[in-house]
Amino acid sequence: MNCSVAQTLEVVGEWWTMLIVRDCFLGITRFDDFQQRLGISRNILADRLDHLVERGVLVRVPYQEHPVRYDYRLTEKGRDLWLVLTALRQWGDRWEAPEGPPVIIEHKQCRHESTVVPTCSACGEHLDVGSVRALSGPGSKNRPADEILLPARGA
Amino acid sequence: MNCSVAQTLEVVGEWWTMLIVRDCFLGITRFDDFQQRLGISRNILADRLDHLVERGVLVRVPYQEHPVRYDYRLTEKGRDLWLVLTALRQWGDRWEAPEGPPVIIEHKQCRHESTVVPTCSACGEHLDVGSVRALSGPGSKNRPADEILLPARGA
Repeated sequence: MNCSVAQTLEVVGEWWTMLIVRDCFLGITRFDDFQQRLGISRNILADRLDHLVERGVLVRVPYQEHPVRYDYRLTEKGRDLWLVLTALRQWGDRWEAPEGPPVIIEHKQCRHESTVVPTCSACGEHLDVGSVRALSGPGSKNRPADEILLPARGA
Repeated sequence: MNCSVAQTLEVVGEWWTMLIVRDCFLGITRFDDFQQRLGISRNILADRLDHLVERGVLVRVPYQEHPVRYDYRLTEKGRDLWLVLTALRQWGDRWEAPEGPPVIIEHKQCRHESTVVPTCSACGEHLDVGSVRALSGPGSKNRPADEILLPARGA
C-alpha cells in the first residue's frame, strides 16, 4: 500500500510494539525488564524485538559474553518515533485518562510542564486538521482512487 | 495498564484501525468505499468500525432508510487523532518512502508545503526527545516500576 501511514504501521503497528518502544524511551534495554514491565509472553516479546531490530528501530549491543546477552537500544530511526509516541500519549491523556495524565512532560529549558503544539515548518504558525490540505506527493503512484481525493500541488 | 499510550492503542491500535481513520480524514464515509480502498474483509471492517463507534472516534449518521445505511464520520475525539496520524505519516515519509512522500501537506494560510514541527506549549521553542523529561503525573498510580523511572515534578 503506497501510504506512509501504512508503511509506518508495518514497522510499529503490531500489538505491543509501540509499548516496547515506549519502554525504550524510558530507559529500558533488557529482555527481562521489558518482559516484567509488559507482562508479555517471552516468545511474543522476542518476536517483536527481532522485528524492531530487522527494521532498524532498535540495535542489539552485547553487554555480556558466555552466554552472550544484549541490550536493545533505539537507533536514530527509533528515536525519531518520539513524535508518534508523544502524539499517542497526548491523545490518551485527553480522551482516555479520567484520573489525569499518568505521565507529564517537562521542557528542560523553560522548566514548565509542556505539551507538544504542532506548528508549520514553513511559517511557524499553529497547525491543525483544518489548516492544512493533503496533496499528491512525489512518491504518489497516482492511484485512481487517490487522484480524486488528492489534487496535485498547485491545482 | 496505567499508561496513556496503552490506552490510546486500546482504541486505535488494532491492525487496520488507523488506516480507516486515515481514510476518514481523506473524506471517506461509506462502508463500501472503505472496503474497496483498504481491500479488507467485510467482517473485519465491520468489527473495526463498530469498535471506533463504541469508543467515540466515529459516529454513524443515517443517509438512507429502507434499508438504513450509514455514513461514518469523525467525532471531535476522532478529529483529535490528526496529530497521531500526522506523526505516523511523517515518520513513514522519512524512513520508509524511498521514492518520496506519497502525500504532502500544504498549509492553507502560508501556501507552503509544510511538515509539523513540535513546539513547547509553555515557551514556544522547538521540542524533541532530548529537550524534555518524563515525570510522574496526577493520574499516576505510583507503580513501583515507574517510580524508579519517573521522578515527581519538582524532584
